[in-house]
Amino acid sequence: MNFSDHTSIRQTLENVLEQSKSVAEKGEVASYIPELARREKDLLGVSVCLQDGTLLSAGDAHLPFTLQSISKIFSLMVALCEHGGDYVFRRVGKEPTGDPFNSIIKLETIKPHKPLNPMINAGAIAVAGMIPGATIEARLEKIMRLLRKMTGNADLRVNEKVYQSEKQTADRNRALAYFLKDSGILEGDVEETLDLYFRHCSIEVTTAEVARMAAVLAADGYDIRSGEQLFPREVARICKTFMVTCGMYNASGEFAIDVGIPAKSGVAGGIMAAVPQRMGIGVFGPALDDKGNSVAGVHLLQKLSQQWELSIF
Amino acid sequence: MNFSDHTSIRQTLENVLEQSKSVAEKGEVASYIPELARREKDLLGVSVCLQDGTLLSAGDAHLPFTLQSISKIFSLMVALCEHGGDYVFRRVGKEPTGDPFNSIIKLETIKPHKPLNPMINAGAIAVAGMIPGATIEARLEKIMRLLRKMTGNADLRVNEKVYQSEKQTADRNRALAYFLKDSGILEGDVEETLDLYFRHCSIEVTTAEVARMAAVLAADGYDIRSGEQLFPREVARICKTFMVTCGMYNASGEFAIDVGIPAKSGVAGGIMAAVPQRMGIGVFGPALDDKGNSVAGVHLLQKLSQQWELSIF
Amino acid sequence: MNFSDHTSIRQTLENVLEQSKSVAEKGEVASYIPELARREKDLLGVSVCLQDGTLLSAGDAHLPFTLQSISKIFSLMVALCEHGGDYVFRRVGKEPTGDPFNSIIKLETIKPHKPLNPMINAGAIAVAGMIPGATIEARLEKIMRLLRKMTGNADLRVNEKVYQSEKQTADRNRALAYFLKDSGILEGDVEETLDLYFRHCSIEVTTAEVARMAAVLAADGYDIRSGEQLFPREVARICKTFMVTCGMYNASGEFAIDVGIPAKSGVAGGIMAAVPQRMGIGVFGPALDDKGNSVAGVHLLQKLSQQWELSIF
Amino acid sequence: MNFSDHTSIRQTLENVLEQSKSVAEKGEVASYIPELARREKDLLGVSVCLQDGTLLSAGDAHLPFTLQSISKIFSLMVALCEHGGDYVFRRVGKEPTGDPFNSIIKLETIKPHKPLNPMINAGAIAVAGMIPGATIEARLEKIMRLLRKMTGNADLRVNEKVYQSEKQTADRNRALAYFLKDSGILEGDVEETLDLYFRHCSIEVTTAEVARMAAVLAADGYDIRSGEQLFPREVARICKTFMVTCGMYNASGEFAIDVGIPAKSGVAGGIMAAVPQRMGIGVFGPALDDKGNSVAGVHLLQKLSQQWELSIF
Repeated sequence: MNFSDHTSIRQTLENVLEQSKSVAEKGEVASYIPELARREKDLLGVSVCLQDGTLLSAGDAHLPFTLQSISKIFSLMVALCEHGGDYVFRRVGKEPTGDPFNSIIKLETIKPHKPLNPMINAGAIAVAGMIPGATIEARLEKIMRLLRKMTGNADLRVNEKVYQSEKQTADRNRALAYFLKDSGILEGDVEETLDLYFRHCSIEVTTAEVARMAAVLAADGYDIRSGEQLFPREVARICKTFMVTCGMYNASGEFAIDVGIPAKSGVAGGIMAAVPQRMGIGVFGPALDDKGNSVAGVHLLQKLSQQWELSIF
Repeated sequence: MNFSDHTSIRQTLENVLEQSKSVAEKGEVASYIPELARREKDLLGVSVCLQDGTLLSAGDAHLPFTLQSISKIFSLMVALCEHGGDYVFRRVGKEPTGDPFNSIIKLETIKPHKPLNPMINAGAIAVAGMIPGATIEARLEKIMRLLRKMTGNADLRVNEKVYQSEKQTADRNRALAYFLKDSGILEGDVEETLDLYFRHCSIEVTTAEVARMAAVLAADGYDIRSGEQLFPREVARICKTFMVTCGMYNASGEFAIDVGIPAKSGVAGGIMAAVPQRMGIGVFGPALDDKGNSVAGVHLLQKLSQQWELSIF
Repeated sequence: MNFSDHTSIRQTLENVLEQSKSVAEKGEVASYIPELARREKDLLGVSVCLQDGTLLSAGDAHLPFTLQSISKIFSLMVALCEHGGDYVFRRVGKEPTGDPFNSIIKLETIKPHKPLNPMINAGAIAVAGMIPGATIEARLEKIMRLLRKMTGNADLRVNEKVYQSEKQTADRNRALAYFLKDSGILEGDVEETLDLYFRHCSIEVTTAEVARMAAVLAADGYDIRSGEQLFPREVARICKTFMVTCGMYNASGEFAIDVGIPAKSGVAGGIMAAVPQRMGIGVFGPALDDKGNSVAGVHLLQKLSQQWELSIF
Repeated sequence: MNFSDHTSIRQTLENVLEQSKSVAEKGEVASYIPELARREKDLLGVSVCLQDGTLLSAGDAHLPFTLQSISKIFSLMVALCEHGGDYVFRRVGKEPTGDPFNSIIKLETIKPHKPLNPMINAGAIAVAGMIPGATIEARLEKIMRLLRKMTGNADLRVNEKVYQSEKQTADRNRALAYFLKDSGILEGDVEETLDLYFRHCSIEVTTAEVARMAAVLAADGYDIRSGEQLFPREVARICKTFMVTCGMYNASGEFAIDVGIPAKSGVAGGIMAAVPQRMGIGVFGPALDDKGNSVAGVHLLQKLSQQWELSIF
């Protein structure tokens, strides 16, 4: 297709949105956090950020939602930039797992007891423990600064209600964190690390912002608007690889076959998809399938991938 | 044998002690708690409390050690007395498990997520959560009061150093507790319940006191010295059954075959063995096998069981 | 109670049978083998064999059924008599497991890969592999000879239809057997060993016969009718211990607490219960609970245990 | 780089081969099959097949070796061509797994009991069961015909010694197959399906042939030499996706990050790597790491990927 024809792109976005909206009925809004459970389930929005910086949207693209697990990509980026891969991968693995994102089993069965990858909760908590700083605020600021640059939104912030809600209903994550502490994977204070984790999960964005972040990833760290290289090409490469092998929870393999775009989803209903050298895509649809992915969002991305031939495979 | 011949009993105790002492070399003193790791590994003591109240000992029977997992029997007793079996067994199962005492796997795999039995750590933490009281001190007091009666030692107390040591190195237990909290098995405050658990594990005893407690169990709750029924026969029966099926960690099946006495061990090196209608036995030997049982203590009990035909099978 | 008062015993049997019959509705007849699935689900029979040899029955005590897993006790007896405990327990463990009887997971997770105990299918197949003989017939004959002596029934035989049915629907057992072969636990020909296993599971008995076998176990191997010691006391002791820790599948712990009698069940609906030094009990009720135990049979034994105080704990 | 400069390509191949040879010392030749165990461990060969059909090699590129798990890609191709994805993926999943290739655990724990993906042994056996044909020979022929076309070698054949060796030492695979049969995933005769599986694993190739097969995959099914489309683009896409998410056993995630080329390895030491739209690569080095991948082969591919920027991420 001709990506300079913006009218045609916008038309395609409207079309796939229309085709995908009804699929939301099959899913359920995340219920484990009260703040998330309140969302109407048939919302759906999509934004595309082309490599020249053009941003095009359709549907509920203006509604704010929290990053949730999408933020795992950014904490990993910060950890990789701060410590390098050798340090990071001594504490967290590179392998996909067939288990659910909050599973604790492999922490016990696999020796040494390190989380299989940084996209499952155990791995992301381990990564949160690697973000340096004198205070939680300073540690969070390292992630926020990166995200503000990537989105171009200087006002990006944590949704306090969601953060408080997360914090109060997070005993499974506490179990994971204390297991990691016991195994020596997590070194600092557990509650502080969890606090940082809950905060970066609660950062509020729109699909437009997610599309912009994805576009920087798609361009291997280069930000067209500022003309800056925001992080090394190598870090982008590692993140995109994890997005393919583990980005969509334990439906990552299926998504790789059916859609074929490096992507990361979150239980608030967001998906960030980075099409290498071509575009960033942000989707928001709060009704989730049983693996935790936006049911309409996945459908929309599959349609878009077929129409524009976006699969990397 | 003639159990009124005390000289002969004492002689047998000395003999089996002598035969078992060298076995300690095969074991290792528990290292996960600094306070336990300091113990000399070749200590060995044994006490027997006959049904008439006679107490006979050999070896290091005067040395204090902490109950550790032996205390799980007493917290279960209190929970059963306070709430009855129906309440207790809705929150914790009755089944032995082939897994180690601190395993978390089955909490995730078994639906509903309740611990398989009250002798593994997860189950004992769930039981600690059932001990009622306005404060931790009040809750602990319920267990202490029972133990003071059973031992006849009004000065029984928690070893503060061991308790502090437990508390600081207990992240695996915290992982178990928060998992239970997440599953709705544990209802109160997690840290408070853990605090109670660490305290009752740190109660300090001698083999003589353990033998006396075992004698009350062997007599189905009847305490010959005070002439009181300290707890219902049914509670004694349930506890002795758990001691057979799950009392010696994941070597319980082997112990049942090789020794055949209801028994509960602790990682400080103690074992409490209740021979129904005949006697209570307390053993202390801090060198542990790889399952967590006193290696010389198990050997000594096997010899004693053979010589006096103590197996219930 | 007065066990010389046969009228009273028979009356109690009739009573508990009546109280337990309706419970069968909660269960389901085993469906995985066509020959078992045909059984009417509300059948219920019970026989008691006292230590003086007296046999008393109530209900459907004349109906034949196949031993199924009850036969695991007898193949273990033969293996122990032929090889001794050291040999046998190098290839199969002594520990109960929280997993279902046909689970394969622990064969992979536990090192060395030996089955946890001889009462789960994997363990019983390993034991079948230890029964020596030039042909399958010769190997089966070793078990049959023991059972004919224990029951006093010279005509005891394999139900050919059930055996054929087992053999054709046994792929899960084949999976277990080939895993054992791969681990070096099973040494001979796999299909031959499975054939032996299916045959001894298909031996046909009545509750009267099961009660007689249980009575010999209760008397530590001594058969009052022939005046013979059919197997060593030590073998009886080991078997009764396994009946307590693992005899009722993964409801063994619950049965030990609620009933407290060494017992082994089979999916045809039979239960063999041996009350040490007192009596053998045979029960038959084909409707099973979700663990694979006769639902009415367990209920009946619980009533009987309460009434006659049969618990060993 | 300039891929029309064959001298330079050959020079690079020689260089990376030289850099990787010594790494073989860290690995071990597969020992579970006698025929594989005989291989000298420091062999190393590599072939590259460019999109114009040019074939360039270095090292031991002329030595025959068996495909082993590389053949799982081709049986999957045949199954997809014969039945379509809907049929195939009802019986086998699309998800990577953190478990070893011969693990049986998830067959029991995941409901329905279908193998997680077609690259682990359980999944590949399920796929073998889908290859239609009146006889094993006819079924094998479907795979052979495809491979003869892809390699251009009309004489391609099964190594009979390796096949016999596989067949005799395959009890773990038998365990997997019978479990699949029990779950209804495998429909036909188990031994016949295993026979087909062992045969396609024993097909003998050279690195040149593997490079040619990989080149067809890299060109989405188009064979430059014959000018034919050998299989649909969609089938190529699915296979390449599996090569990324599950192609290198439970080191697939690491390989994706470190090398970034869709690849499939086999325990004979072969690796087939398809660089989309650019080239096919065949590597052979029999010394394996603990996951089952050629240790020198992986090293060589990593060097090549860095030098030529072959990562798809």
